Amino acid sequence: MKMNKKPQPTQRGPSEHNVRDQIVEAAAEYFSRYGYEKTTVSDLAKEIGFSKAYIYKFFATKQAIGEVICANCLSAILNAINEGMVDAPTASERFRRMFKATVAASAELFFEDRKLYDIAASAASEEWQSTVSYQIEIKKIILQIILEGRDAGEFERKTPIDETVNAIYLVMQPYANPLLLQHNLNLAEQASMILSSLILRSLAP
Amino acid sequence: MKMNKKPQPTQRGPSEHNVRDQIVEAAAEYFSRYGYEKTTVSDLAKEIGFSKAYIYKFFATKQAIGEVICANCLSAILNAINEGMVDAPTASERFRRMFKATVAASAELFFEDRKLYDIAASAASEEWQSTVSYQIEIKKIILQIILEGRDAGEFERKTPIDETVNAIYLVMQPYANPLLLQHNLNLAEQASMILSSLILRSLAP
Repeated sequence: MKMNKKPQPTQRGPSEHNVRDQIVEAAAEYFSRYGYEKTTVSDLAKEIGFSKAYIYKFFATKQAIGEVICANCLSAILNAINEGMVDAPTASERFRRMFKATVAASAELFFEDRKLYDIAASAASEEWQSTVSYQIEIKKIILQIILEGRDAGEFERKTPIDETVNAIYLVMQPYANPLLLQHNLNLAEQASMILSSLILRSLAP
Repeated sequence: MKMNKKPQPTQRGPSEHNVRDQIVEAAAEYFSRYGYEKTTVSDLAKEIGFSKAYIYKFFATKQAIGEVICANCLSAILNAINEGMVDAPTASERFRRMFKATVAASAELFFEDRKLYDIAASAASEEWQSTVSYQIEIKKIILQIILEGRDAGEFERKTPIDETVNAIYLVMQPYANPLLLQHNLNLAEQASMILSSLILRSLAP
């Protein structure tokens, strides 16, 4: 997965790779305590005991570090969604499980760790590359389920498939985007069930 | 319409009524310039040239003033929605127009006047009485359309009607609640059309 927009220095061996990981890990820890927006690369450098110039050797900007943390988080959500769907007997059931897993994993990763909310909120409002890629992945998962359901005769085939996918994505968005989910947290699980049913009614042949 | 939770002093004639209106008008103007959250009743009193005690004769709290401004705004949105639906030939068309008018009026009143966003955001996040009443009104309008469509054979009748109404309300919420709409403004009009179509597919008999 592409982690950020800026070109990265070529990886020259395990040692540099370890330094990158070390910076990302320390940054995630530091952001969690002091917030992503408020932290500067200088703060981070002091905390880790590296020079600012040394950190800039690995990451062109603070956002580039945030992108890696964010991409790791979104990748964990995608894994949880894929695991949640395993062994679903029908496309309808796969859809229900997908929506439920999206809400559960997003609520857990963005909000139980407030640090990730802080980064995820910046990423979502500034449309970082990692969130754009994530949206594309979610739409691909929806498309896959719709195609399966259409093939099996479970879902209607009249509506243009792009419209179906976009509409479903729009219904799910308030429960997947951290900026919206923060206002929906209390009722998110119940809402995902009610909305799954509505969506499945809209897909009936 | 009940404007706020606190009991109001009995209206004793047009003169006191005019003073209330004068305070509300001046407050709306003042909040627009300096923000609702940051303004105190003392600031307001100075601006209007009344004593703080005199303002408290009419409104028990700053929120009580905000409630009137908010209730007026929500009442204007409800009027716009009702006007938008006039003469719709079918329940489906009434539904489309209702969703569209909700988004257009909310976007206009909450965001073209940033002052109202400030009050509306406090009202929505603190669940003021005016916003609770507004939600009930919106659900009543949805219920009315569903009943009409079911009677006319346009909509299915198997799903419990409360579930149908709640599900539709949940789909609309991100485009009606100012806290969510602020993140959806760019695509709100297009989203309302795509989502209306999805909802109408879910209502097909």
